[in-house]
Amino acid sequence: MSSDKVQIFDTTLRDGEQVPGCKLDTQQKLIIAERLDNLGVDVIEAGFPISSPGDFTSVNEIAKIVKNASVCGLTRAVKKDIEVAGEALKIAKKPRIHTGIGTSESHIKHKFNISKEEVIFRAKEAVAYARNFVDDVEFFAEDAGRTDNAFLAKVCEEVIKSGATVLNIPDTTGYCLPDEYGAKIKYLKDNVEGIDNVTISCHCHNDLGLATANSIAGVINGARQIECTINGIGERAGNTALEEVVMILRQHPYLNLDTNINSKLLYDTSLMVREKMGMFVQPNKAIVGANAFAHSSGIHQDGVIKNRETYEIIDPADVGVTESAIVLTARSGRAALAYRAKKIGYELTKVQLDTAYKTFLNFADKQKEVIDEDIHLIMKQVNKISKIAIA
Amino acid sequence: MSSDKVQIFDTTLRDGEQVPGCKLDTQQKLIIAERLDNLGVDVIEAGFPISSPGDFTSVNEIAKIVKNASVCGLTRAVKKDIEVAGEALKIAKKPRIHTGIGTSESHIKHKFNISKEEVIFRAKEAVAYARNFVDDVEFFAEDAGRTDNAFLAKVCEEVIKSGATVLNIPDTTGYCLPDEYGAKIKYLKDNVEGIDNVTISCHCHNDLGLATANSIAGVINGARQIECTINGIGERAGNTALEEVVMILRQHPYLNLDTNINSKLLYDTSLMVREKMGMFVQPNKAIVGANAFAHSSGIHQDGVIKNRETYEIIDPADVGVTESAIVLTARSGRAALAYRAKKIGYELTKVQLDTAYKTFLNFADKQKEVIDEDIHLIMKQVNKISKIAIA
Repeated sequence: MSSDKVQIFDTTLRDGEQVPGCKLDTQQKLIIAERLDNLGVDVIEAGFPISSPGDFTSVNEIAKIVKNASVCGLTRAVKKDIEVAGEALKIAKKPRIHTGIGTSESHIKHKFNISKEEVIFRAKEAVAYARNFVDDVEFFAEDAGRTDNAFLAKVCEEVIKSGATVLNIPDTTGYCLPDEYGAKIKYLKDNVEGIDNVTISCHCHNDLGLATANSIAGVINGARQIECTINGIGERAGNTALEEVVMILRQHPYLNLDTNINSKLLYDTSLMVREKMGMFVQPNKAIVGANAFAHSSGIHQDGVIKNRETYEIIDPADVGVTESAIVLTARSGRAALAYRAKKIGYELTKVQLDTAYKTFLNFADKQKEVIDEDIHLIMKQVNKISKIAIA
Repeated sequence: MSSDKVQIFDTTLRDGEQVPGCKLDTQQKLIIAERLDNLGVDVIEAGFPISSPGDFTSVNEIAKIVKNASVCGLTRAVKKDIEVAGEALKIAKKPRIHTGIGTSESHIKHKFNISKEEVIFRAKEAVAYARNFVDDVEFFAEDAGRTDNAFLAKVCEEVIKSGATVLNIPDTTGYCLPDEYGAKIKYLKDNVEGIDNVTISCHCHNDLGLATANSIAGVINGARQIECTINGIGERAGNTALEEVVMILRQHPYLNLDTNINSKLLYDTSLMVREKMGMFVQPNKAIVGANAFAHSSGIHQDGVIKNRETYEIIDPADVGVTESAIVLTARSGRAALAYRAKKIGYELTKVQLDTAYKTFLNFADKQKEVIDEDIHLIMKQVNKISKIAIA
C-alpha cells in the first residue's frame, strides 16, 4: 500500500522569524527559502506582508525565486491585509493566502469582544475576499485548541462554503494533550460537511512540550498538513519541529503516511537556520542536537559497537549526520575505550585493556571527556606497566 | 475527588550526568541532590555505583544528606554491581536499588546472545539478590519499548514474584508513539498478575521528540512514576523533561493526577543544572527556555496585554519566572509599543502612537530588538513632529 502524503508547511520564515532576536533581512530569508524549497517542503509561509514594509518585500522576493513549493502570506481577517498579501504574492507560481480569526471563548471575548455570529461572518468574508486574489486559501481558526468542537465545526463548514481549500486548526497556546487534539481533528472529519474536499492542517505550539506529539495525533486522525519550523523555533516555546515529524513518519511506516522531505538535508538545514537566526539548538534536541547520536555511557556504548540498532533507531546518515560519535567519559565502558583506541591504532589484548581501563578511569574522573591525545598518554603508561609493546 | 499521585523519579544525576561534557564532581552533585530534595522529587537516582570510584563516593555522600526522597543506585543484573550499590546506599533513609536487563529481541540477540529463559532467570536472580540489601527494588526491562508485550508481561510477572516493588518500562531508544506506549502500559496492567501491588514507571527517551507525550500516555494508562531529568538532559536527545510533565499534569486537572513538586522552584532549578553541567537550554524550550513566556508578534502581544490567558496557559510566576517579557521587534504591534512606552513613563494619544509606531518600525527594521533606550529616542522624534509634549 502506498503512503498517503502529509504536506509539510514550513513557517520558519513567519512564526519562526517573529521570535525575539530572530529577525532576518530579505537576503537571508531568500537563502533559507531556497534551501526549504530544495529540502522538499510543500508550502513556505514567507511572512506577514502587511506587518512592515520589510516583510512585504521579503514575501514578494521569495515569491519570485521559489520553484516548487507554494508560497504563503499571513493576514488577519481584514481586507487591507488580504489585498497587501495578494499583491506581495502576485508573482508566485503557487500563491496561498493564509487568513483567519480567533474562535475560542477567550479570543472572542477578550480579544475581539464580538458575537459568535460576527466571528463567522468575518471569517467567511475574509476567505471569500482572498479567493479574489488566489485559488488557494488557507483559513486559521486561532486558538482552535481551546475552541468548543461544535462551534469550530460550524466555522469550518462555513469557510469551506466560502472557498477555503485548507483548514488550519491551531493549538495556539500549546494546551492540548495528544488524545484531545487527535479527537478534535476526528470530530471535524466526522461532522463537517465538505471536509473531504479540503486539507486539514495541524499548527501546534510547544508550551507543554507536546507540539510534535499533537501534530502526529492530528495526521493519524485525518489531517494531511503539518505546520512546522526548522529546529522547532517559533513564538514562546516554539512550534512543531519539522525534523521530528518527518522522521517519526519515516520510522513508523505502518502509519502509511510520508512527506516529500529529503531527510538527508535536515542536519545542514538545521545548521543554516541556527546560524542565520542566531537561535541555538540545545545538545539534547531530537534529530539535530549535537548529542542526538552521541553515546557516552558504558552500557550503551557497548551495545552500539556490537550493533547500531541496539540503541539507535535512526541511521545518522539518513538525516545528514555522518557518524555516531563515541565520546569517552567516566561513564564509558571497556568496549568504548577499546573501540576508540583501535581507531587511532592500538590493538589491545584483554589484559592490556584491563590495565588501560584503570588508567583511563583516573583520567576520566579528572576531566569531562577523554580525547585522542589522552588515549596516547594512557597507552604509554600501559606499555610501561605491561612491558608488552602495544601495536 | 483528590488526585492520584504520580511519583517523580529524577535521574539528572545518573542518566543526565552520563552525557558528554556533563560530568560533575561529588560536591556539585550534592548541591543538586539537595535542591532536588527541596523541589519535592520522590526518588533521586544518584548514580551507577560500580561504574567508577567517583560514582560510588557520590552515591554514598548523596545517601547521607537527602532528607525526604528515596535515593537510588543503578546496577546491571550482576551480583557485584548489586553488592556495590547496596554498600553505597547503606546509609540512605530510603534506599532503592535499580537493576535490570534488556528484554527486546535486539538486546537479547545482539547484546547478550542468550535465550529468553536465561533473561528471565537473570532478572529474577538480580531482583531477589537486591532484596537482600534493600526493601525497595526497581526492575528495568531495557528496551521495553521494542519488546514484545507478551514476553514483557512474563518478565514483569516473574520479577514481581522475586520481590520487585517498581517496574520500569523504558522506551530506551525513543521509538514509541504515545498510543503504542500507552497501550503497552495498559497491556501490563491488564495481563500481569500482581501488577496492582507494584508501581509501573515510565522511562522515555526523546530521540523522536516524544518522551514527554509518551510519559503522559503512560500515566494516563496506569503508570504512577515518571523518570525524568531537569531540562530533559540525558543520553542522545535526552530524557523526559521533569518540568514539562509536572506542568502538564497541573494544567490538566481533569486527569486527576498530580506530583509532589513545588513548581515555583522549577525555573531556578533549571538554571542551577544548566550552570553546573554546562548544558545549555535553547530559548524555545518548553517551560524553562528564555522565550517560553516572551511575546513578540504584534497579534500575540495585543492579546496578552488585553488578557494574559489569551496566549499564556501558564502563569510564569507558577514556575518561578517573574514576568512575561514583552519584547519589541519589527513584528510588534502598536499595543506592544504603547505598553512598553507606558512602562517607562510615556502616555501616548492615538495620534502620537501612530507617529511613534512609524518611527518604531524604522528602528525595528534595522535592528533585532528595540530596547528602552530606543524608545526614548523614538519619543524625542515624535515630540518634534507632533509638537505636543509627551507626558
